[in-house]
Formats: sequence, C-alpha cells, structure tokens
Amino acid sequence: MKAKVIVMPKQSVLDPQGVAVRDAMHHHGLPQVKSVRIGKFMEIEVEGADEAKLHEICRDLLSNPVIEDYRLELQ
Amino acid sequence: MKAKVIVMPKQSVLDPQGVAVRDAMHHHGLPQVKSVRIGKFMEIEVEGADEAKLHEICRDLLSNPVIEDYRLELQ
Repeated sequence: MKAKVIVMPKQSVLDPQGVAVRDAMHHHGLPQVKSVRIGKFMEIEVEGADEAKLHEICRDLLSNPVIEDYRLELQ
Repeated sequence: MKAKVIVMPKQSVLDPQGVAVRDAMHHHGLPQVKSVRIGKFMEIEVEGADEAKLHEICRDLLSNPVIEDYRLELQ
C-alpha cells in the first residue's frame, strides 16, 4: 500500500521560503505568480497499516500541528 | 490558476532524510513501513502563465535535475 502525506504551513503562518521563491520566479520572467507556499511531500510504502495509526504518526512525527497542516492519502 | 509542483529525489539517489523518517516510524510502532521518500510540495498561484514557461522554471529554479525529478500539475 502506498500512502502520500503532504505537510503544508498553515494559511495563517508566514512562509518566508515561499516568498523567496515567488520573488525569484518574478526575477526569472514570471511576474504573473501571485503566491507560493512550500511544504513537504512524503511517499510511504507500507504493508497493511491501519489508517488511524498513520494519522497518529502524521500528527506526532511528520508534522508540527502548531504551524502545519497535513493531508494523508491512501492508495 | 493553481499549479502544484512536486519535487522528489530520483529513484537512484539515496534519500537519508527518508531513511531517518522510516526508522523513526518503526520506533513509533509502525514496523510495516517499507520505505519513505521525502520531497517538496509547492502550491503556486499564478495568473495565466504558459505551461512551457512554468516547466522552464521548474527545471531551472525549483529542482536540481541532477538528483531530483519534478512533476507539474495545472488546475
């Protein structure tokens, strides 16, 4: 089974890395870019784990719930 | 328009961050995890840019083609 986890900074949290990339894209000839937000993408190969346990791991290990949201997709 | 860019280490490239997270998941009671690979996820808000230009930026700015692959999704 494959699990994908996306961890993004919360909307209310500043993302200086995203701002820097947006400015760099402007300098590279893409002034149409309005905003960039940067997070982490994890591809997890797992054999028959239960979803509740994976959510627990996402919360406790893979993200910082104070400043980040996560999304778990199972395939 | 929204663009999503996923940048992952190439399959042939070691991903020590992924290995560390896999080991941590084992210690947190998920020994079923076989592998973890970690990349970047970028959400880009852009007004009417052409796709070719976005691919150019992905190649030149957002990823390192020597060790990373990128995937661009337009919505």
